[in-house]
Amino acid sequence: MDTQGIAILGSTGSIGCNALSVVESFADGRFRVVALAAGRNVERLAGQVERHGPELVAVEDEAAAESLKLELGRRGLKVPRVLTGEAGLVEVATHGAARTVVSATVGAVGFVPTLRALEAGKRVALANKETLVIAGELMTRAARTSGAELLPVDSEHNALHQCLRGERREEVRRLILTASGGPFREKSLSAMASATVEEAMRHPTWNMGAKITIDCATLMNKGLEVIEARWLFGFGADEIDIVVHPESVVHSMIELVDGSVIAQMGVTDMRHAIQYALTYPERHACATLPPLNLTKLSALHFEEPDTARFPCVLLAYRALREGGTLPAALNAANEEAVKAFLAGTLRLTDIPTVIERVMDAHETRPVSSLEVVLAVDRRSREQAAREIARLGEGTKAVA
Amino acid sequence: MDTQGIAILGSTGSIGCNALSVVESFADGRFRVVALAAGRNVERLAGQVERHGPELVAVEDEAAAESLKLELGRRGLKVPRVLTGEAGLVEVATHGAARTVVSATVGAVGFVPTLRALEAGKRVALANKETLVIAGELMTRAARTSGAELLPVDSEHNALHQCLRGERREEVRRLILTASGGPFREKSLSAMASATVEEAMRHPTWNMGAKITIDCATLMNKGLEVIEARWLFGFGADEIDIVVHPESVVHSMIELVDGSVIAQMGVTDMRHAIQYALTYPERHACATLPPLNLTKLSALHFEEPDTARFPCVLLAYRALREGGTLPAALNAANEEAVKAFLAGTLRLTDIPTVIERVMDAHETRPVSSLEVVLAVDRRSREQAAREIARLGEGTKAVA
Repeated sequence: MDTQGIAILGSTGSIGCNALSVVESFADGRFRVVALAAGRNVERLAGQVERHGPELVAVEDEAAAESLKLELGRRGLKVPRVLTGEAGLVEVATHGAARTVVSATVGAVGFVPTLRALEAGKRVALANKETLVIAGELMTRAARTSGAELLPVDSEHNALHQCLRGERREEVRRLILTASGGPFREKSLSAMASATVEEAMRHPTWNMGAKITIDCATLMNKGLEVIEARWLFGFGADEIDIVVHPESVVHSMIELVDGSVIAQMGVTDMRHAIQYALTYPERHACATLPPLNLTKLSALHFEEPDTARFPCVLLAYRALREGGTLPAALNAANEEAVKAFLAGTLRLTDIPTVIERVMDAHETRPVSSLEVVLAVDRRSREQAAREIARLGEGTKAVA
Repeated sequence: MDTQGIAILGSTGSIGCNALSVVESFADGRFRVVALAAGRNVERLAGQVERHGPELVAVEDEAAAESLKLELGRRGLKVPRVLTGEAGLVEVATHGAARTVVSATVGAVGFVPTLRALEAGKRVALANKETLVIAGELMTRAARTSGAELLPVDSEHNALHQCLRGERREEVRRLILTASGGPFREKSLSAMASATVEEAMRHPTWNMGAKITIDCATLMNKGLEVIEARWLFGFGADEIDIVVHPESVVHSMIELVDGSVIAQMGVTDMRHAIQYALTYPERHACATLPPLNLTKLSALHFEEPDTARFPCVLLAYRALREGGTLPAALNAANEEAVKAFLAGTLRLTDIPTVIERVMDAHETRPVSSLEVVLAVDRRSREQAAREIARLGEGTKAVA
């Protein structure tokens, strides 16, 4: 058995920690962590370096690099090579000894390093859905050119990947992404307008980072996933549907042309999807993970998403249909709006307003290069900041 | 596109009629009905001959053959070759122009013709589960030797076949057969003891023939399916589980070694499974069949089967574990007991009693030949008749 070198972008986040937990659960030395990239959580990163001994580490900036070196020194550990900024992320993503790169940074920061990993022919276990939303065309083209595999770690897309294993593309009628519906599934629009950060962070079934949890509360997460599914699996906007499934037991489904539906089900633990992506095409027993106990489940429900209360879904479909740089504008506006909500300077229900205004102002162009996308990302964030400020003046923000 | 010759054993039954409906739904001439076998429903068979013009027809006996010829004459139709008895069934099953044989007779009568079809290298679309219960070893050996494909039409096994498409055998931990639970799922044992034929025939989700509907009421149908699954897919008794799922939306599931569960879902219409078996490995759009509308479904439930009220399940597992000729004895006893219940001479709750007594008296031997199995089938029926008579003396039978 070959040892598989693993690099992780975003190692101290929720997915990163789970990926390391999966690596550790294989006592047979199947995986070796060769490079880690994190932001500023130096304490946690030092612990990961201690445990896994990567050859290369990247952090956000020089200050974080200095703290990390101090912390490692304090623990009496050998200091690996430490890099910073985007250049550091790219080095981690293209490390010569890495066969698989777990792309799990939050937001657009993962974009360039993930593209470089694909260009270098690495298998990419992708948790950073923004990467595909912003520039799915560039990413998938890079993967095709180098022969790199792109394996989804998002539980929904991982489920779709599993459902599609035995099927031919032309015999699949549509993809059906399930959505928990988030904490406001049964709440009124006015309750949503006055929602606090704490309320929005109460995800009913999954325990995840802040950005994605807020995206779940607005259903933008599902909108982004529709765009992600388009690039991962080559289905059009009319062939990807969303079904609200509050129990999150069915992770997603496909419908075949003959009317048959294939669903993937499991417990809500990201380690399953991560392990699937790391070991694919093999499957391995997960001794540390609880199996799904069907007869202990509550009843499973399915309902239509309410796009009146959750207009982010419609915005995402609009961006996907128009294509080009519009999804990048949508993503940038969403990231800024979510940040503002988390900072207490924007209402939850104003998140779609900000996005829509940025999209309305955006002049869509083809995604011809990295530079085009990055420029759209930057300008859309500036535009979003102006819209957020304008909305903040008009309404009293929720603390 | 080659035209695929189809032969149907049991063409006037529920599966047979649905198979013809599937054939008709393909207007492109993909399928041609070359041979039909039925019992004594001459009226319906004549209609099928009129519509499909098979070259060969088989009926139960000479009397039925004469009536059929009269009926065809009355309709002014050319009379095809008409055969009778088991020899007729075998001729239909091995017809030179048939590439696929739909094996849909009820009970043990389909055994020999299905074996002959497999020996002749035909693809067998198998709805007759008793065939595999009685002599799975002979059947699967014949298929392996001739290279024949055995495709399940039972909705549960068809679902398993679909779930297994993209998976490796050694990475599948277990098969999970779903059971509707039948009309007595929530009834007490005493209500079951006094159940009428009419009550037992009220299947909650599927519309099927009498024998299988009673088997559903006792859960013996699921027990037979466990044995069927063992032969179709090569899983052991400890790797096949039953989950009661009253809505019959999930037709069955597999659990992979990594904890992932793949489920196949659909509407409860046998035409889906039949079409799948006829067109495999292709899938085709079913214009005439309604798709599954997930958001119109009621909630989905899963529960453990209650083996205290439904001991037939345990009897089937016992037969599978002991193997050899014991499943043939179980099947024969069950067929006779069901007949007696339908005739009003046996209580529903005495069906497992009859089977258990026949099994207890049975001396299990290896399934070394056709003759061994047929002898066990015959002797077990005689034994069952005696047990039924004995029980009939002791208890007042339900009319």
